[in-house]
Amino acid sequence: MVHINHRVGIKAPLQKVYEALATIQGIAGWWTQDTTGKSEIGGTIVTRFHTLEGTEIGSMHFTAKTLDPEKKVRWEFTAGPPEWIGTEVIFDLHQDGDYTIVLFSHRNWAEEVEFKSHCSMKWAIFMLSLKQLVETGQGKPSPHDIKIDNWN
Amino acid sequence: MVHINHRVGIKAPLQKVYEALATIQGIAGWWTQDTTGKSEIGGTIVTRFHTLEGTEIGSMHFTAKTLDPEKKVRWEFTAGPPEWIGTEVIFDLHQDGDYTIVLFSHRNWAEEVEFKSHCSMKWAIFMLSLKQLVETGQGKPSPHDIKIDNWN
Repeated sequence: MVHINHRVGIKAPLQKVYEALATIQGIAGWWTQDTTGKSEIGGTIVTRFHTLEGTEIGSMHFTAKTLDPEKKVRWEFTAGPPEWIGTEVIFDLHQDGDYTIVLFSHRNWAEEVEFKSHCSMKWAIFMLSLKQLVETGQGKPSPHDIKIDNWN
Repeated sequence: MVHINHRVGIKAPLQKVYEALATIQGIAGWWTQDTTGKSEIGGTIVTRFHTLEGTEIGSMHFTAKTLDPEKKVRWEFTAGPPEWIGTEVIFDLHQDGDYTIVLFSHRNWAEEVEFKSHCSMKWAIFMLSLKQLVETGQGKPSPHDIKIDNWN
């Protein structure tokens, strides 16, 4: 199994970062505007991605497995790109001075594939969007996300 | 051994991307303005990083191991952060329609550490800078790089 791991520091209280990760409104502010479902333990969240013109280009379904306001959010993917099914995303939070540190991990990819390298770049772009959302009130969720290659 | 892998697509001919990776002037345009040395097989390149006020905050020394204009640049790190020594960075290039695809890999980290997660985010930021440099003529090399946490 192989993983994507990123570290980002956000100049804001941990509680504000947690809310951006643990609520539908929060996720819609940094990942994709089209985020629906229930962010509660066992609940399903659906994220859909569109072009600027409105064409759907992909979607993911995932279950909230951990929602710990002091330190962690964990999701398990149940539908979406085949490589994602059964993988999990973990956001580990801790305070370090003025910063809330987010240790992001997209875990348990079966193998190193080109699509994983693409997703690694995109997750970095979305972690930057999360940081901007929490620090400034304005993220860059899809379809306004920074495009990084010919796959999006 | 664990690795950092990113995929970026640049709307430009492969030769332009190669020049940005294989010349001192190119590297200075996307990674750090303070890049010196010789980009030739067996030559040593030195990158130094500064704050905006000019204080040095780190440096790396690496040797060019592969300089293949059609498809690959490979570096081996000989000095810098302890975790980097002995690791290598590979840029694999291929054309896909209007894009030159860069498969970036920072290979052979001894273990998953928080510093690797930091470097994964920073490499994504610098791959974005490389894309901007080649597509627009203006990258964001250090010290003008996007800051992502309390470590830089």
